[in-house]
Amino acid sequence: MTLKSRAARTRFFQNLSQSEFRDATQIVIVGGSAAGPKAAARARRLDPTAFITLVEREETLSMASCGLPFYVSGAVSSRTALLESASGALRDPAYFFNTKSIVVHTGTEAVALNRLERQLTVRERRTGTLRTLPYDKLLLATGAKVQIPPLPGRGLPGVIPLRTLPHGDAIRARVERGVRRAVVLGSGLVGLETCEALTKAGVEITLIEREAQLLPPLEWQLSGLLLRHLQGNGVAVRLGSEVVSLEGTHALQAVTLRSGERLPCELMVVATGVTPNSELARAAGLRIGPRGGIQVDRFLRTSDRSIYAAGDCVEVRNQVSGLWDYAPKGDLANLEGRIAADNMLQGNRVPFPGTQGTAIGEFFSFTVGTTGLTEEAAHAAGFQVESVCNVSTDKPHFMPQARLLVSTLVAERSTGRLLGFQCVGKGDVSRQVSQAAVALKGGLTISQLQSLDLPYAPPFSQAVDHFLTSVHLMENKLAGRLKGVSGRALKALLTDSTPRPTLIDVRDPHEYDAYRLNQGELLLPLGQLRRRLNELPPRRETPLLVTCLMGSRAYEASLVLQEAGYTNVQVMEGGLLGWPLRPKAL
Amino acid sequence: MTLKSRAARTRFFQNLSQSEFRDATQIVIVGGSAAGPKAAARARRLDPTAFITLVEREETLSMASCGLPFYVSGAVSSRTALLESASGALRDPAYFFNTKSIVVHTGTEAVALNRLERQLTVRERRTGTLRTLPYDKLLLATGAKVQIPPLPGRGLPGVIPLRTLPHGDAIRARVERGVRRAVVLGSGLVGLETCEALTKAGVEITLIEREAQLLPPLEWQLSGLLLRHLQGNGVAVRLGSEVVSLEGTHALQAVTLRSGERLPCELMVVATGVTPNSELARAAGLRIGPRGGIQVDRFLRTSDRSIYAAGDCVEVRNQVSGLWDYAPKGDLANLEGRIAADNMLQGNRVPFPGTQGTAIGEFFSFTVGTTGLTEEAAHAAGFQVESVCNVSTDKPHFMPQARLLVSTLVAERSTGRLLGFQCVGKGDVSRQVSQAAVALKGGLTISQLQSLDLPYAPPFSQAVDHFLTSVHLMENKLAGRLKGVSGRALKALLTDSTPRPTLIDVRDPHEYDAYRLNQGELLLPLGQLRRRLNELPPRRETPLLVTCLMGSRAYEASLVLQEAGYTNVQVMEGGLLGWPLRPKAL
Repeated sequence: MTLKSRAARTRFFQNLSQSEFRDATQIVIVGGSAAGPKAAARARRLDPTAFITLVEREETLSMASCGLPFYVSGAVSSRTALLESASGALRDPAYFFNTKSIVVHTGTEAVALNRLERQLTVRERRTGTLRTLPYDKLLLATGAKVQIPPLPGRGLPGVIPLRTLPHGDAIRARVERGVRRAVVLGSGLVGLETCEALTKAGVEITLIEREAQLLPPLEWQLSGLLLRHLQGNGVAVRLGSEVVSLEGTHALQAVTLRSGERLPCELMVVATGVTPNSELARAAGLRIGPRGGIQVDRFLRTSDRSIYAAGDCVEVRNQVSGLWDYAPKGDLANLEGRIAADNMLQGNRVPFPGTQGTAIGEFFSFTVGTTGLTEEAAHAAGFQVESVCNVSTDKPHFMPQARLLVSTLVAERSTGRLLGFQCVGKGDVSRQVSQAAVALKGGLTISQLQSLDLPYAPPFSQAVDHFLTSVHLMENKLAGRLKGVSGRALKALLTDSTPRPTLIDVRDPHEYDAYRLNQGELLLPLGQLRRRLNELPPRRETPLLVTCLMGSRAYEASLVLQEAGYTNVQVMEGGLLGWPLRPKAL
Repeated sequence: MTLKSRAARTRFFQNLSQSEFRDATQIVIVGGSAAGPKAAARARRLDPTAFITLVEREETLSMASCGLPFYVSGAVSSRTALLESASGALRDPAYFFNTKSIVVHTGTEAVALNRLERQLTVRERRTGTLRTLPYDKLLLATGAKVQIPPLPGRGLPGVIPLRTLPHGDAIRARVERGVRRAVVLGSGLVGLETCEALTKAGVEITLIEREAQLLPPLEWQLSGLLLRHLQGNGVAVRLGSEVVSLEGTHALQAVTLRSGERLPCELMVVATGVTPNSELARAAGLRIGPRGGIQVDRFLRTSDRSIYAAGDCVEVRNQVSGLWDYAPKGDLANLEGRIAADNMLQGNRVPFPGTQGTAIGEFFSFTVGTTGLTEEAAHAAGFQVESVCNVSTDKPHFMPQARLLVSTLVAERSTGRLLGFQCVGKGDVSRQVSQAAVALKGGLTISQLQSLDLPYAPPFSQAVDHFLTSVHLMENKLAGRLKGVSGRALKALLTDSTPRPTLIDVRDPHEYDAYRLNQGELLLPLGQLRRRLNELPPRRETPLLVTCLMGSRAYEASLVLQEAGYTNVQVMEGGLLGWPLRPKAL
């Protein structure tokens, strides 16, 4: 049987007597975005006879919400592309029924959950019709909802989040009508992608972030490089800033910041993050975590043994820290949906290990990626850590397509276990972070990683890949050979009033002339260092801080200085290219 | 002291009395390409007082030989770029001396090794001067040499390997003089890169490979896709073919193949691989392996406790199979150099685990990458394996920059341990193979890998990354849910005279009309399959083989057919997009 028309489907569903399927396992799934459809498809593969029903509040299914910024920018031209499978089939109820024997009700919301009777009550939103679905196993994949700050005027046309396809349509419509100025609220991945999308569409952007830096969980130094890059691409950025009021008669006309600054704009995209959509679970008395997400065990089972939960509505463990976390991400939602189905259908046998906090985003050809813990997060989780910054091109310098990468790698001091890796730049960040993410999954140590056999050819990587160089630098640091100062520490050094170390720049004069730290540093090119040691302070205990372009010459120089008897020599990690506060040029 | 001129350096080296350094550890290194300089630099970092001497036969040091094809194509325009460090310093003896206190003799070959006295005799090639270098520890990093087949006429101008910068110069000079036709001998990575380089320079290319497929260790199906791609870019390919004679009076004019075919050409680039340069070691009585490479233990120590070896001159273990291997690669040479220095300077404490056989190359924007064992190699090494082919775009299909990836993943049947991964296509193969390479290093299993938390955003990957989908397919295969036929098996099926399974194509009619396998298959679109089961052979034991575009619809269909009672249903893995023998279009 194939169901083409909506009418045919409705008839089918109305006449469908579940009693005919009395012997089949009844699987009900709430939510048709990522985790839900994935679980439904997986359930069908595991059990050809199960009766699988999925309900979704919206009219669309499996919408690729991660693609929305690219729909807004016009890079994704077709609206339907976001709703289609890879082979071009529209993922509508007929598709799910015809290809997978899954019964899907769109435009239908779950309104009540009777755990005692194991029944879910749903309402067709268009008609108000209520229906009761019995279940053996229920999956809650209710997702997340956007948070719009409770500002006066928040209901004005022009104040739009970016979460659903109608949101994307609304923003696109405004852009096509010629919006000139917009503010973007929040510098998470979606906020930053939106900045690029709107800039490309010709809109003047101001990005507003409440914290003192962009992408708050990111390491300060890397975040600073991102800031330079955004500003270089015409995005006005207000850090440590908040919108306190919205202005407009029939539509948004301006926003005012806490500083008093007034920004005329016809559009405000709200990208301040999402919170778990856990009302149904909460109302049914299921256990809810401190972040408002549904609490699940390692098999993604809620506090009710017949009910599982997956995707943006649950709280998950951070695999590295062992702490609970909230990680609303499409890729995780897919994995969780798959594993939840495994456990619902086959008994609880596949544990979901949790998130590693892996993420990536590209903004104006500048990529930011992270996996595991930053130095700060690792400290907060109670680890004794070492961190190292590495700056290099992604490919050999002689390749025309070589681009810069700046990264920090974090490892546990006692065991050498990798704890985290963050990477930014115009280079191939994706490969770098992917490698680190797999290494984290394996719990690998610096000692195991130092002989990684990675795919090398000049179009793809350095002979010693950037990540591998980071591992080698960390090995040197853990062994006490490399003593470095991080960007954050250097910033503190330069702004504090305490006596500074003697700064030494070991680059060549022409490099020094082009730009430098400009903090009173001595110029002593590496190749001349040995014979010009007499120009340095004679006291061997004098703190010395050596810098160069990317850190490697400074490292060499530090060894020369130590050999010469200096006992307190440090290297500016990542050099000037990794330093976010450097002047553009002198 | 800084040494700028050659004369100054020569004076310095002549006057240098090693007795002044009597208390210092004497480290002597033979070979200045990758492993040698890396070991020298590492040794200096580990021991600031060691007396480190490096000798190199050629006049240039640390030449990035992997960059040669890109120098030939003109992508790398500057010859000196291949000799410079990332910060633009020429890596000559003065550079090594001034920045690292390493004494380097270029144009100097090692001629004799007296193990009893621990002395190496070297000869300055220009002057013939002999010098004896005493050592505490010696590193042999003598590299590899090209093999030119012993053909009459092999000495003709125009017959050139691609290993050194002078080779690159010679090929480039010929190209600039207007070579019209060239043959490339050998379809390894260098041969294939050379095909692209010369084609881009306007030369008509015939590629000659002795084996029946390109890049012989690569899986047949993936190699077939590469073949299609090369041919589509104008490279004439002769498989299973050999040059038997060379023709020319003052320079090469033509080659003749075993088939009798005569190919007029003015250039033949020999890229038939390299063999270890182990003469010095052999003459000194060090143990040599069956592949002609120097045998080393896991600390890279030769059969003499004072002598280590690293780089293209040694044999190494394959980490996955445990078997000995020969892996002449620049990235491994760097790792080995680093580890050899660790063990020479600090006692034998850092084991080198060996190669995973990781490699990558890009040819006309089509990338081929591999890590670990192919199915065949795994069989040969005694593993019971399962293999799965996966075809998908690297990014979501709605992203304009999405490109195809075709891969095979190999796992051990009993343990689920990943054994190998090969991937080809226009997509981001580099990330895919890198992920697999790290997973192999960690000895990770399919069960551990199935919840990988990888960096996802639409510009970089699918929500469920290609590699992760391969892992999921393998999980289904190991659990007996997915029964697939590999490309190689299908080829056998279609060419054998034994009764064939009933072929079913489950795509849509317009896809079928555009092109198809054309082997008498039934067209039964997935969405109609349930109600058209009566069109299939009634016997439930009938072997059925289902195909589609990329394999996923065929997998769905196989479940429908199994549910309907068919007991012998298989899927054409990778579908038509992964099938190298498909017609371009009907």
